[in-house]
Amino acid sequence: MFDQWAARSTADGKDYKARVESLREQLLQQQFALADSGRSVILVVAGVDGAGKGVLVHRINEWMDPRRIETNTFWDRSNEEDERPYFWRYWRCLPASGYTAIFLGSWYHTPIQQRVDGEIDAKAMRTVGERIRIFERQLSAEGAIVIKLWLHVSEETQREQLDESAPQKRQNPRVTDRPYELHGKYKSTLRAAEELVRQTQSAECPWHIIDAEDRRSCELTAGEIILKAMQSPPTAATAAPLPPSPGNDYLAAVALDKRLDRDAYKKKLDRYQARLQDLVWQAYRDKRSLVVAFEGWDAAGKGSAIRRVTAALDPRLYRLNQVAAPSDEEAAHHYLWRFWRRLQRDGKATLFDRSWYGRVLVERVEGFASDREWQRAYEEINEFESELVAHGNIVAKFWIHISPEEQLARFRAREKEARKRYKITEEDWRNRDKWPAYAEAVNQMVDLTDTEHARWHLIPGNSKHYARVRILKKLCETLEGALG
Amino acid sequence: MFDQWAARSTADGKDYKARVESLREQLLQQQFALADSGRSVILVVAGVDGAGKGVLVHRINEWMDPRRIETNTFWDRSNEEDERPYFWRYWRCLPASGYTAIFLGSWYHTPIQQRVDGEIDAKAMRTVGERIRIFERQLSAEGAIVIKLWLHVSEETQREQLDESAPQKRQNPRVTDRPYELHGKYKSTLRAAEELVRQTQSAECPWHIIDAEDRRSCELTAGEIILKAMQSPPTAATAAPLPPSPGNDYLAAVALDKRLDRDAYKKKLDRYQARLQDLVWQAYRDKRSLVVAFEGWDAAGKGSAIRRVTAALDPRLYRLNQVAAPSDEEAAHHYLWRFWRRLQRDGKATLFDRSWYGRVLVERVEGFASDREWQRAYEEINEFESELVAHGNIVAKFWIHISPEEQLARFRAREKEARKRYKITEEDWRNRDKWPAYAEAVNQMVDLTDTEHARWHLIPGNSKHYARVRILKKLCETLEGALG
Repeated sequence: MFDQWAARSTADGKDYKARVESLREQLLQQQFALADSGRSVILVVAGVDGAGKGVLVHRINEWMDPRRIETNTFWDRSNEEDERPYFWRYWRCLPASGYTAIFLGSWYHTPIQQRVDGEIDAKAMRTVGERIRIFERQLSAEGAIVIKLWLHVSEETQREQLDESAPQKRQNPRVTDRPYELHGKYKSTLRAAEELVRQTQSAECPWHIIDAEDRRSCELTAGEIILKAMQSPPTAATAAPLPPSPGNDYLAAVALDKRLDRDAYKKKLDRYQARLQDLVWQAYRDKRSLVVAFEGWDAAGKGSAIRRVTAALDPRLYRLNQVAAPSDEEAAHHYLWRFWRRLQRDGKATLFDRSWYGRVLVERVEGFASDREWQRAYEEINEFESELVAHGNIVAKFWIHISPEEQLARFRAREKEARKRYKITEEDWRNRDKWPAYAEAVNQMVDLTDTEHARWHLIPGNSKHYARVRILKKLCETLEGALG
Repeated sequence: MFDQWAARSTADGKDYKARVESLREQLLQQQFALADSGRSVILVVAGVDGAGKGVLVHRINEWMDPRRIETNTFWDRSNEEDERPYFWRYWRCLPASGYTAIFLGSWYHTPIQQRVDGEIDAKAMRTVGERIRIFERQLSAEGAIVIKLWLHVSEETQREQLDESAPQKRQNPRVTDRPYELHGKYKSTLRAAEELVRQTQSAECPWHIIDAEDRRSCELTAGEIILKAMQSPPTAATAAPLPPSPGNDYLAAVALDKRLDRDAYKKKLDRYQARLQDLVWQAYRDKRSLVVAFEGWDAAGKGSAIRRVTAALDPRLYRLNQVAAPSDEEAAHHYLWRFWRRLQRDGKATLFDRSWYGRVLVERVEGFASDREWQRAYEEINEFESELVAHGNIVAKFWIHISPEEQLARFRAREKEARKRYKITEEDWRNRDKWPAYAEAVNQMVDLTDTEHARWHLIPGNSKHYARVRILKKLCETLEGALG
């Protein structure tokens, strides 16, 4: 396949110089424009060992402004990376808007190698391909320019390039110290790569196969592909149209009259906290991470319910994140980036007081996200949670529901109590006025993101006692179900 | 020692409840005030195994608002941590202003353990103590409230606590799965701890020894210590007065008439780039990281000189950081935090286009840092670079010097050239008016931070050719000297 596909530029010495000169100027110009556009460039440079990937990346850094380029390699997998979902190591290297990140070694490397080594079969490879398509589509949908280059050389050229006696090879410990995982496996590598390249070919994130037999031609071709991609206007993200809302009113179905008297509360609280403590230790020993999103109406008792959960946990085993407005670093990245970056190492729990669901709740209702943005978020959120679960994380999501009357009573009580007055702001009253819009958003969120691997639990919150015990119970059940 | 020192609160059942109630209220209030104060709390909880550190931390999280507390443990050292200077793993866990970070397991753990195991002697322990004092002083000087608790129990109590048959112990793999590094070494641990505690006792970052025989008493005592520390007004950081400036005019001594003609330039450029390439590969193989700070006047040719350096490097071996205004996350931390966080893993080079010297240059001259802040920065910077070097990093620092006349000519040329017009702004002209103030700052910076382990190189920059080659040469020499 690659043989037929490979794009190739021809250029003799003089022509080369002139074309490079013009290319450089235009690339610099595009890089400069990028800084203002709010977009970023994600450049994957792949190919068999010896295809000249390193040399090409060196040239790109020379042609462009290296201060706005970050080159990422993944030679030494760290245990911090291994102990998170697969794409975490790539998410954390994603460029901020205005920047270019080159991935030399990328999310493609491991599956190709595993396929060559027979560790995964064609079916598993298709699954990997699908997950990669999703990852790249998510990036591209938020405005990243994703460019994927495969440098193609013949088996003979590879053999020459990898010849360890060549003087320029002696430096690189990849050449001198390590086994070539793929060396001597040219044909099977190409077969595996073709498989994955086919599966991850897409209009938004296309692969470009480049004939890399001739260094100059390869560089020119690559440079021109990058330039063209940077010049292209953002493609209107083709969001899957939202399914027609079935109009389910999940909130109305919540049994708000549930109550728990003080004695029963104390007893049950103790029981479930003890059980949860055990289960979280077990999760730690099993290296399974619990990821919990807490959502709910203002004054629903989210904070105090979370305290009943954390009270049951060894503080060494969890991290609680309070989600408010993004920092400027976070705002310069994909909206899911700030949740990816918070994920703890395997075995530790990550709790979110408000979460990624803000996209389809407050951001939707307040207009902070465009229609297209929040509408495509349901799918993206399901995909995000799938990635967590695929790695072995255990995901639980809570919406604490109260009636508008109960909320009003709590607001008034807070205003009276000096210690809690700070908890009630103008914004809370404004949000309250938008109750129906929020209710619609919550119902649709449950419709579209209540998945088998990441269930929504709607918690009756008019009785705080009942809500707290209910959350603890659901957490225990979720953990028990997952830990077996 | 600990026996005599240990603070102890006594409280019977009823008294305990009342005191806890009042303590909680006040702690919450202080935590709330902290958010506005721009300060943070760093709480070290130390003590022999079995002293009840985990239980205490649990209680603190229960008493205070856990949403603004992060508990850090260092059970599993990651290779990303091992491959950076010692304090990196702690710097990256430092709380943002308004937050509290609990360190359960801290910078004290490893040296005490090493001392017990006979891996370090009394002299090495003193050195560690000194480095810890420096670290804590730096944090406290920027407004962090550093509280250090040592929980003291008798050998008998420890033995009881560590009894593996106790039901609550069975969960914790620290107890069930791992050897107690310190178990059975009670006396030697205490001896080592006393040594280090003595050496790191200071007015700003005091140790509190707490009698932890009784859980309730321990909790109350700890809570009261924390409360008192949070209530204390920030201590006026006692900056060492600046030594009288010797008035050396290093800049005047730079031989600005140095020139290099085109042919000699090309030849030397090639030669030093090739040498640098080799040396950086060698540094990679030796796991030694190069850390370079590039500074210089506006239009001194810093950018183009850096490009001649990066052109020599394999892009997989370095990361170039452009330092501009801090992000809001960075601004919420110690001013050195944003440089610590950029450090690459062992063997990889970190280049800074502008650096931590901004504190004593632009921040000093423009008044972004208070006098006290920039004046104490010289010492802090020397200490920072010492830490890098102590870990095996190789540090080099460049100031590219040009004459005011040369700068004016370059500014004018830039204004004429369409492609470079963006490079010249109002700010550049304003900075130019402050030439004498900047010159004084540069001279003083060289006076106070040109150390044996991290030399300043003042580079004559009127000839760009000369400057570029000179920088490459100095980098090569620095690497050769360090790599041996």
